[in-house]
Amino acid sequence: MIEDKNPKKTPLADLGEFALIEHLTKSFSISQKSSYTGVGDDAAVLNFENKSTVVSTDLLIEGVHFDLSYVPLKHLGYKAVMVNLSDVYAMNAVATQITVSIAVSNRFPLEALEELYAGIGLACKTYNVDLVGGDTTSSTSGLIISVTALGVAESENITYRKGASQNDLLVMSGDIGSAYMGLQILEREKAVFKANPNNQPDLEMYTYLIERQLKPEARKDIPTLLNALEVQPTSMIDISDGLSSELLHICKQSDVGCDLYEEKLPLDPAFINACEEFNLDSTTVALSGGEDYELLFTINQDDFPKIKGNPNLTVIGHVTDASMGVNLVTRGNEKIPLTAQGWKSF
Amino acid sequence: MIEDKNPKKTPLADLGEFALIEHLTKSFSISQKSSYTGVGDDAAVLNFENKSTVVSTDLLIEGVHFDLSYVPLKHLGYKAVMVNLSDVYAMNAVATQITVSIAVSNRFPLEALEELYAGIGLACKTYNVDLVGGDTTSSTSGLIISVTALGVAESENITYRKGASQNDLLVMSGDIGSAYMGLQILEREKAVFKANPNNQPDLEMYTYLIERQLKPEARKDIPTLLNALEVQPTSMIDISDGLSSELLHICKQSDVGCDLYEEKLPLDPAFINACEEFNLDSTTVALSGGEDYELLFTINQDDFPKIKGNPNLTVIGHVTDASMGVNLVTRGNEKIPLTAQGWKSF
Repeated sequence: MIEDKNPKKTPLADLGEFALIEHLTKSFSISQKSSYTGVGDDAAVLNFENKSTVVSTDLLIEGVHFDLSYVPLKHLGYKAVMVNLSDVYAMNAVATQITVSIAVSNRFPLEALEELYAGIGLACKTYNVDLVGGDTTSSTSGLIISVTALGVAESENITYRKGASQNDLLVMSGDIGSAYMGLQILEREKAVFKANPNNQPDLEMYTYLIERQLKPEARKDIPTLLNALEVQPTSMIDISDGLSSELLHICKQSDVGCDLYEEKLPLDPAFINACEEFNLDSTTVALSGGEDYELLFTINQDDFPKIKGNPNLTVIGHVTDASMGVNLVTRGNEKIPLTAQGWKSF
Repeated sequence: MIEDKNPKKTPLADLGEFALIEHLTKSFSISQKSSYTGVGDDAAVLNFENKSTVVSTDLLIEGVHFDLSYVPLKHLGYKAVMVNLSDVYAMNAVATQITVSIAVSNRFPLEALEELYAGIGLACKTYNVDLVGGDTTSSTSGLIISVTALGVAESENITYRKGASQNDLLVMSGDIGSAYMGLQILEREKAVFKANPNNQPDLEMYTYLIERQLKPEARKDIPTLLNALEVQPTSMIDISDGLSSELLHICKQSDVGCDLYEEKLPLDPAFINACEEFNLDSTTVALSGGEDYELLFTINQDDFPKIKGNPNLTVIGHVTDASMGVNLVTRGNEKIPLTAQGWKSF
């Protein structure tokens, strides 16, 4: 699918850089009020009308962050956008624009990049963000994607990592660990396929886990929900690098401790089944797996009635004094200090 | 210098991603009024107070955009920032913030990244821009740098590629072609060094050309100068991809033609000497060389007295009707249609 073995496919050299950008972005239109102009000049022109602007950026490298042997390019384009939007939502802001730069080697035909941009375009449409700029160049090996996301919020609503206070409740959106188990399943299928290319895998029972890995959705709904519930979180972070590591960031930057309850961790039944099948401890995976594009935040205890029973939110712990440390409280009521076993790429 | 052969150097694996970002960015402070917070949260928070914001992004890939066998890492960091600021200045805006993402393989020790960030830091200080975010990750091979630059301007001063009108004058800053000849000299020295590693090169006569290649300066001064002279350019572009190709962009987007005068091209004497030495046609190099971080713009003829005699600016042509095409008028008074021979990376 990726390798340009098909003579009907269009080599990138046929287009050149400017024609390529034009070709890939021509179907994108801009719709945000804050977007004056998009792709096509030295820079995009935006106007945020006195609101605060948030900016976040991420770099995705083939062979490090994704494996094209099982990640469809359209899904990859979609996910590259999600990774960045999630950081904007983690500021309690609304995402408005992205820029996308890609570097590709000559093994990619034009049609492969069209797939990638189809995914980027779907993400832009679904999440109501405008593609306003980027760069397209060649690489000596593989595919590199760099996305920068911009968003807006009223200054008083922006939520940092540093605002948690003692007795605040620790809350997370969605469930956790599934993206990591989705990756384990894809890696296993890749190994099976290598050994026997005629093997027909039945992945239906793993649909949820694989989707969490290949086509994650950023939590655009959470800032909107919190605003509707009139809850101003005291601190917030995206947990894509692993719950344990991200909780430590909040605690360090807020100068607080935290008790996180093992029994409260929101785990999907499919995730629990997969952990049993792979003989992995579900709590360890939930704490350190990563790639769940969920939000972790703290709220004042007084706000608890507003979020109680909401199916999108789970209270998983509470904030303590810094001297108490950051601990997992196990089902057996033992306290184990948490360590950052989040994603460490070197 | 780059390869991690020295056991005293610090492997990146000793730090991990978060400690690495913290280490590399700890000496950076933010000073722009529009920067609320910089590195250290899910996203940076900015406020442009009702001014227009411009956003530009570029990706630099080892082996495509730079060769570490003769580009010092500090210079590379500096240049990576210049490449992006130049796009902001080309909108007639003031650059205010950058984000920098890097991907590196394990062959780079910590000390190499410190050099790279020293160059980024020097650029930030010299150009008064704040580093407000980024991403650091591993790559399977080589060094990748992605920079996004933000800037501000009053909406009415922002200058697009599309505003040129018939009879406008075509103006450029600085001189042209030198960066390309600097690259030729560096490539020649690399070949000489490979053949005889004991050869001691004398590059003093090429200082200007090599500096134009290795340590270019973006034209921060030009928007300020034009503002002081009360000249509002009708269109503007950065010519780093080659004068010929960039002029074609202006003409296409403005729906005009242009006559560019060969005899008016601003060429440095060191550039002319080097073209003779390498037996290259100086006009061809000036038109297609690229990597000169100068600005090309058009002004109303009525503004000519305001810029006349300014040593930073040269009138190199005038805008015509679209039906006349885009031409080089040679010293022999022949008209030759210009073609895009600018940088084509595939």
